[in-house]
Amino acid sequence: MKIGILGYGNLGRGVECAIRQNLDMELAAVFTRRDPETVKILTETAQVCRVGEAEQWKDRIDVMIICGGSATDLPKQTPEYAKLFNVVDSFDTHARIPEHFAAVDAAAKEAGKVALISVGWDPGMFSLNRLYANAILPEGKDYTFWGRGVSQGHSDAIRRVEGVKDGKQYTIPVETALTAVRNGENPDLTTRQKHTRECFVVLEEGADAAKVEQEIKTMPNYFADYDTTVHFISEEELKKNHSGIPHGGFVLRSGVTGWEKEHSHLIEYRLKLDSNPEFTSSVIVAYARAAYRLASEGQSGCKTVFDIAPAYLSAKSPEELRASML
Amino acid sequence: MKIGILGYGNLGRGVECAIRQNLDMELAAVFTRRDPETVKILTETAQVCRVGEAEQWKDRIDVMIICGGSATDLPKQTPEYAKLFNVVDSFDTHARIPEHFAAVDAAAKEAGKVALISVGWDPGMFSLNRLYANAILPEGKDYTFWGRGVSQGHSDAIRRVEGVKDGKQYTIPVETALTAVRNGENPDLTTRQKHTRECFVVLEEGADAAKVEQEIKTMPNYFADYDTTVHFISEEELKKNHSGIPHGGFVLRSGVTGWEKEHSHLIEYRLKLDSNPEFTSSVIVAYARAAYRLASEGQSGCKTVFDIAPAYLSAKSPEELRASML
Repeated sequence: MKIGILGYGNLGRGVECAIRQNLDMELAAVFTRRDPETVKILTETAQVCRVGEAEQWKDRIDVMIICGGSATDLPKQTPEYAKLFNVVDSFDTHARIPEHFAAVDAAAKEAGKVALISVGWDPGMFSLNRLYANAILPEGKDYTFWGRGVSQGHSDAIRRVEGVKDGKQYTIPVETALTAVRNGENPDLTTRQKHTRECFVVLEEGADAAKVEQEIKTMPNYFADYDTTVHFISEEELKKNHSGIPHGGFVLRSGVTGWEKEHSHLIEYRLKLDSNPEFTSSVIVAYARAAYRLASEGQSGCKTVFDIAPAYLSAKSPEELRASML
Repeated sequence: MKIGILGYGNLGRGVECAIRQNLDMELAAVFTRRDPETVKILTETAQVCRVGEAEQWKDRIDVMIICGGSATDLPKQTPEYAKLFNVVDSFDTHARIPEHFAAVDAAAKEAGKVALISVGWDPGMFSLNRLYANAILPEGKDYTFWGRGVSQGHSDAIRRVEGVKDGKQYTIPVETALTAVRNGENPDLTTRQKHTRECFVVLEEGADAAKVEQEIKTMPNYFADYDTTVHFISEEELKKNHSGIPHGGFVLRSGVTGWEKEHSHLIEYRLKLDSNPEFTSSVIVAYARAAYRLASEGQSGCKTVFDIAPAYLSAKSPEELRASML
């Protein structure tokens, strides 16, 4: 299986690493908007090409993994490249998934290609667990907690505050809320009761710490609805202790069964990730295998994790899977 | 969707309760080896029939759920009824799944029916989580812990000991082992290090407690390889505190990503179940929906949870699922 990577940021590099762990796959080429001369990749056997050259690789790449951002890149790129390749993306703007699906589906169907969108862990593995748990326990309550982990969007928001030189934001689930859910108490939780936010901020020379803290804590949408803690630290400390991109979270469903709903059950799925982009990439690469196989069967159009039978993700044969994992 | 239940024990009753929670399904009939006059079911609109009458229901039942035991019932029943109906079973003898699959597949293919085998939580949801986690993290280590829950097989073993009037056995995961796995320590765990066994025993009048305890603790296969605790209690206490059938457990995969395998990740799936048979039944009923849909598409043959795209389990449409759960 020959894989292409379009866009070589954190996610693209993660995909490159994940391909190395899957012996039935090979990285063919990385496509970049930058000057290829300036882009150094890790895989010696793969080429670095200009994004404009992608079309020439039409018959040499089985699946193109599109590693752009959801805000502006993917809504354009995924439909565009689905005309040329089987593609996988990690589009994560939940509210806009239906329109993204429609655009990608039209392009992929016309070209006879398979396109998998919104692959990763949320959307992705978390979505799958919501679906399975809801199908099994139709009467119940869903909970999703994120963290402890770095939120890129909230870190960016901190960095836009005047007087801030650099910063990182951690989203943290409230332990007592998580415990209440696990105990089957089915609490109704406000935004504030579910997560806290912790910020590590490096100030510009001469900036007013109190003013910066106040501005962060009252920022609408991002922080105002949460209990937020702000720590001021040195640039060295930020680099030393906060340069990783950990994340994770919990999907829980608490439900009842029995003629009189007399029995309670809890389904919990948890991720604890050292590297958010590398884990997302690992999910994407497993689904690239599925895209390849579906295309080999003659299927086409846009699909999501909901549409893919689990066996398609594994390098093992159905017989091996039944004998070893069932 | 009209459902039949073959066998009306704990599992059959659980299926009946689960059908009530799924508005697109209806229980048509329960088939029993007992005298139908003596079997009282909960659903007023459904019939109770002799198992020998099942064939007459060929065109009135969309999916037959076979609620027999794995030791002797299912190896005969599932291939037999797959000739007449789309079927779902919960065959759970892991080592014999390949041969069961082959027998059921031949029967179902010849009849043009869909047969789903080994549906439940282990095999079933635990298997799915092993597969997903292995596909995402090819380099890693798997762990499955069961409990805290009642093991039917071990409870039966206790009751066969001379001097024992009644008894219940709980399988309990060792907390320190679970913590080590969660911390990414990738421990190699012996049988004894993973689970303990706790027994609640009611003695026959005049039985020798010390002898019974010794016999239980040294029983090969069942208890000898575990740290086992035996509590002697009264019949009333057993009835009052130990008449439930709770169970559950944990599937974990600890793995690494990155060019130099520098990042660790943990995927954990946990079930905490008040009623083992009712939860198993709830999984089965969701997969009955999938069996019905696959059959409507003209598919046939034996399938497992690995072969079923998640969307088939849900009563919601693909559009609704994408908009609400992705």
